[in-house]
This record gives sequence, structure tokens and C-alpha cells, in this order.
Amino acid sequence: MKKVALGIDIGGTNTDMAFVDREGNFLAEGHLPTSNFPEPEVFVAVLAEKVKLMKKTMGEPIEIIGIGIGAPMGNINKGTIEEPADLAWKGITPLADLLREHIDLPILVTNDANAAAVGEMIYGSAKGMKNFAVITLGTGLGSGIVIDGKLLYGQDGFAGEVGHTIVRPGSTNRECGCGRVGCLETYVSATGLKRTLFKIISDSILESELRDLSFNDMTSLNIAEAAERGDVLAKRAFEHTGEMLGLKLADLVAHTNPEAIFLFGGLALAKGLIMEPTLRAFHGNLLSIYRGKVKLLPSGLNSKNSAVLGASALAWDQFGSVEANT
Amino acid sequence: MKKVALGIDIGGTNTDMAFVDREGNFLAEGHLPTSNFPEPEVFVAVLAEKVKLMKKTMGEPIEIIGIGIGAPMGNINKGTIEEPADLAWKGITPLADLLREHIDLPILVTNDANAAAVGEMIYGSAKGMKNFAVITLGTGLGSGIVIDGKLLYGQDGFAGEVGHTIVRPGSTNRECGCGRVGCLETYVSATGLKRTLFKIISDSILESELRDLSFNDMTSLNIAEAAERGDVLAKRAFEHTGEMLGLKLADLVAHTNPEAIFLFGGLALAKGLIMEPTLRAFHGNLLSIYRGKVKLLPSGLNSKNSAVLGASALAWDQFGSVEANT
Repeated sequence: MKKVALGIDIGGTNTDMAFVDREGNFLAEGHLPTSNFPEPEVFVAVLAEKVKLMKKTMGEPIEIIGIGIGAPMGNINKGTIEEPADLAWKGITPLADLLREHIDLPILVTNDANAAAVGEMIYGSAKGMKNFAVITLGTGLGSGIVIDGKLLYGQDGFAGEVGHTIVRPGSTNRECGCGRVGCLETYVSATGLKRTLFKIISDSILESELRDLSFNDMTSLNIAEAAERGDVLAKRAFEHTGEMLGLKLADLVAHTNPEAIFLFGGLALAKGLIMEPTLRAFHGNLLSIYRGKVKLLPSGLNSKNSAVLGASALAWDQFGSVEANT
Repeated sequence: MKKVALGIDIGGTNTDMAFVDREGNFLAEGHLPTSNFPEPEVFVAVLAEKVKLMKKTMGEPIEIIGIGIGAPMGNINKGTIEEPADLAWKGITPLADLLREHIDLPILVTNDANAAAVGEMIYGSAKGMKNFAVITLGTGLGSGIVIDGKLLYGQDGFAGEVGHTIVRPGSTNRECGCGRVGCLETYVSATGLKRTLFKIISDSILESELRDLSFNDMTSLNIAEAAERGDVLAKRAFEHTGEMLGLKLADLVAHTNPEAIFLFGGLALAKGLIMEPTLRAFHGNLLSIYRGKVKLLPSGLNSKNSAVLGASALAWDQFGSVEANT
């Protein structure tokens, strides 16, 4: 019987999932709109139905070895999602327990960036690396840190929340979804980029095509495209974003001394725009003992399916025995 | 034959060492002034002679199981000291190789804060803990991070340089010995406290007994004593120092999610003065998922011998088989 892992990526807007074989091939996919389900119980029931449908689309019988779930504030120890800034589910959601009422399989829940890090290690550019970090740049900023070939979970399962380190101490002007002020992800993320652009618009008198878009209508892609066309304010927004990211990645190195840091996700796809200022600030802020030793690279998995691939890698890593192959 | 470890703590001013038994008892001690030896070759030769003398003072024959050395910028992988900000030895010093020319024993070199962390784990308040960090507050600020019961060394042996994370991005007014500007240890350390006090003196018109002391004559103890006597500027200096430390310890938690953080060393001895503002800033800056979970505590080893004890614990941990006992 064909063995597969079920990888699930829960995002603030959408949830994507797939049956993924050991080699990283997607055999069936499913999607549902997370934000349509304010009750996690309903979400889980719908998700379980989708999985049944996915099974039916398979030409052959399959054995699901386990389920890997990447979700904001996913807690590996308890299988819970706890106080996520980017989801409608408040408090503590016992996700694994809820899902297990429908599907009796081993389930791992961790944050999406941890899943991305395992994906990078098994299928991406971190193959063979023992110490590295992955920074996911989407609606927010996530981070997964691998130490000696293993994900760093810490005492309570919540290590790697670099998006919630403070970049502007004492700042009063960037509120974060986490309830605090000045967090890195309020500056460095798709939303952070927009906020920075709006600050720049408010300060500047220069023309910009982006002055025609409302905050809610604008996407980071709009800003990237404007920057590519030479829009000065858009370029400045990327510049500032990279400066903040490079600075805090130098701090990350001073904590864990990785071999490499990978940038993953939508915003990271704007490669030159984000990479150049980030690299400059990163190397400019790096302590001398680390210089020339720590690489800053784009993820080897920057595709639309990477988050699901990472989640499935989590299951293979824990419940299968994955050989590092392509 | 009595088994001992040789623990050596190399500081900017003094080097202390001792034969330490498995239970943490000091059986013989030695000292030499680091700053008197600008050539590491000479330092090592003198150190080896001191060890011979120490051996002679022992009433019984001993077997040295190995040598643990804590030193600024000590590199565990190579046995080197690399570009230390606080020592006269520039570039890369092959300390273990130099010492092995005189003493043929297994030698471990790591930074003094890593040694303190192992000491805390074996003899101090971190007994039984798997995930914690130790912050050493001396001339500089060091940090040792333990993950799953093992020291975090990272890819190049230099993990845990929290003293060189940036606390004031873009600041132009606090140069660090590492060649950069705005590092945490320029604010939070014995020297940082003095610098902060001098900044406060420069800004304020209030009276203070500390206005009678030059920078070079002043110690952090002077400031602590003045604060205890109610000196407003001295108290303000501790307040600011604690604010900065608490802020960056919250960042440390967002990286590694430890169970506890211990404050160790001279400055940490000023318990109420430094602990209270640090705790306030720490809890005020902690992401909600960590609140009530991560303890901030004084070290259980705050004595004059703790650094040497930590260095010896390093040797016992690696070359002996230490039971966690008292």
C-alpha cells in the first residue's frame, strides 16, 4: 500500500493540505478558507471531510503514516494552537485532540515556520546542514531554528518567535497583533512592508503610484511591482524593511550561531528587493567572529506548495523514516 | 588516586584556577594577573608552572581528569580564543595547543558564560533543568544557553553572544570593544552601568556623591553602594540598566524559550537594584505565550569561586561522569 503523509498548512486566510509521498510528491490536494470558520470544531469537521474526499480521488489505496500541521502558535508538546495573532480562534485551541475525534492518526502540530524549517532540511537547500534557521515572510514573520539537526522547541514548545522580538524599544507607533508594540513582524512581513510604505507616504511629498491604493486594497506584490518599475517610495519601503530584518538576523546569529539563514515565503520571492538591503544590514551588524561564516540565502523551497511540503516533512521526519533525497 | 578536574577562568584582569573534585570542592587554588601577559605563550608557561606548584601543595597524589577553561570568545571546536574584546591577545590564540605543550591532558576551551552555565546545571540552581540560560554580568555581558541538557555551541562554537546583540539600533553613542556600536554589553555590564551613570550625570543637575569619582576610579560597587544610600542618579543608572536587560532577555526567550534565565556575576550580586527593574522590563516585554512560564532568577552560584567551579564542571561534564549532586 502506498504510504503518504498528510501535510496541512493553516494560515490566517487559507488552509492547504496534501497527501505527500516520501519523495515530496503531491498525490492529492485540498483547500479550505480558514477565516470562514470562527469555530475550530467546525473547521476540523470540514477538514476531515475534505480528507475523505481526497482519499477517494486517489487511484490506489493509501496508508497515511501521520499528520503534520503547521499553524501559527502551534504547540508541539500539547498539539494546541495558543493565542494566535493571525487566526480568529482565541485562547487555546486543542487542535490535535479535535482532529483526532475525526481521524485516528498520529498528529504533530507546530508553528508553520518550524514546518518550513523541516521542509528545508529534507527537501530544500538545508540538506546536510545541522544548524540553520528559516525565516518565513508572509502576513507575519515566523522562524524555525534547527540545532544539531533537530528543531528547537524549547521548554514549552514555543522557541523561535523571532517575529516577536522587539526591534524598536520604547516605540509607541507600531502595534502588533500580539498585543505589544514594536515587534519585528510589524516592520518585516507583507503587512509590515505596507505599514512602512504608509509611513513613508505620510512623511514624503514625492509622487508614487501607490498613493492611489488604500491600505486594504494594497498587497506587498503591488509594492514589489512598483519598486521594480522604479517607484522611489516603494524602493525605500523595501530598503527599510531589509535594514530591520538584517539587524535582527544578526541578533539571531548572536544567539544560536547557525551555518545559514534561509528566507522563505511570499515577501522573500521579491528577491533582489528584499535580499540586497537585508544582506547589507546583516553583514553590517554581524559580530566579527561570525563574519564570512554565516550564509543568508533564499529558501530552496520558494513555491506555493512549500508550506504544505514542510508540514508533511514534519510527519515523515517523526513517523516515517525519511532518507534525505530529492 | 584522588581524581580532580582543573578549572581555569581567564578574565580580562585576572585568571583564577583550582583543582576541583567531583563534588565541587576546591582542593588547591592558583591565580595570575592576565593583563600582565600580553604574549599568550608566556601566560601559558607561567600558568603551567603554577599548576605544578598547586600539585605540590596537595597532601595526596592526584589524577587530573582534564582541564576546563572559560575565557572570552573561547571556541570549543578549535580550543582557541578568537578576537576577544576584553583581552590583550589579538587575533586567534590557539590556547589549548599552547597549553598542551606544557601539560598533556584533554583540554576544553569555551566562553566563560558557557562554563558558568554548566556550573549552574551541575552545582547550582539549574539542577534538573534541560532548557535554561545563564547571563554573566561582569566587565562585559556573557551568555550560556543550554538546550535539552547540552550547551548550545552552534555551527562555529560561538552561540550565545547575547552581549553583542544590538539594543540601540542606529545609535551612534555607545562604542563597543567588539568594534561595533550599540551592543547590549555597552549598557548592561559593570562597565555599561558606569557609562550609563556618566550619561545620567551629563544630563542631570541633581547632586550625587558619584560626581567626585573619575570614570577610571569608579566601580560598579561604588554605584551600588551609592544607590543603597539613596543616591538618585545611581538608582536611575540601575533602573536604566535593568530596563535594557529585561528587554533583551525577552528577546532571548523569543529565540530559545528556556525554562529559566539566571543572572550571574558581580553586577548580579546587587540583587534588588538590578533584579527589580530587570524583572519589570522582562515581564513587560514578554510575548503572552511565555508569560508565567519563564523564570528570571539569581544564580545559585554567586560566589567569588563560581567561574572556576563552572570551568571545572565543564571538564567533569565532558571527561568524568558527573552525578548531579552537591
